[in-house]
Amino acid sequence: MDGTVDGTTETRRIATEYVERLERRDWPGVTELLDENVVYDMPQTRELIRGRAAFMRFNTEYPGDWHLVVRRVVADGRFAALWLDTRVGDERQDACVWLELSEDGRITRVTDYWPDPYEPPQGREHLAERY
Amino acid sequence: MDGTVDGTTETRRIATEYVERLERRDWPGVTELLDENVVYDMPQTRELIRGRAAFMRFNTEYPGDWHLVVRRVVADGRFAALWLDTRVGDERQDACVWLELSEDGRITRVTDYWPDPYEPPQGREHLAERY
Repeated sequence: MDGTVDGTTETRRIATEYVERLERRDWPGVTELLDENVVYDMPQTRELIRGRAAFMRFNTEYPGDWHLVVRRVVADGRFAALWLDTRVGDERQDACVWLELSEDGRITRVTDYWPDPYEPPQGREHLAERY
Repeated sequence: MDGTVDGTTETRRIATEYVERLERRDWPGVTELLDENVVYDMPQTRELIRGRAAFMRFNTEYPGDWHLVVRRVVADGRFAALWLDTRVGDERQDACVWLELSEDGRITRVTDYWPDPYEPPQGREHLAERY
């Protein structure tokens, strides 16, 4: 952190930049936000990708014309949570992304969740409306 | 907010209490955290439940011996994001919960995501390790 703003403000800025630079395919810009030893965690598939080089390769090789828009960013000290609208072609999906930053403001861990749509179980139609 | 702490600190406390009181089945305690017009949103099933009474009924009727533990809480002004470890019997699942609070510190919107595990697509085994 540069000392001119509190950690939360800087974390919020970095979290937003992370998504916006990915969306722009600004690969050098993304790279400079990442700690060299960043860990990318996908708990749904129990996959870990270790290190900036491998994570950048994962991003640059990722198939499809994907797009990311920040719906909400919540920053708290050196942690952030991002709620994203994502799109690949006509396919929309929401994503939940958790970031951890080092003391010098680099992203050290990214945890991504990709929740799929599903049909609601029976028995709560009396409480819920569908949209 | 009571004015003795900043909004973020109070939001963090309320977000944590929300989960801990659900876990304890402290229904009066959960109720007092909720705005009367709270909206509970489940984007994966496109279900909305409107109002404290309906949302409390949803929670108290929810089947299974479910348990919730806060893994992380990220609070920022009147927004919070909760990363939960959930369990029903032996079934573990992570959850991502987004909260919005009113100016007087009541929860006005809860958005829950329940991301299911899935098998990773082929083609990234050279970058990822499984756990």
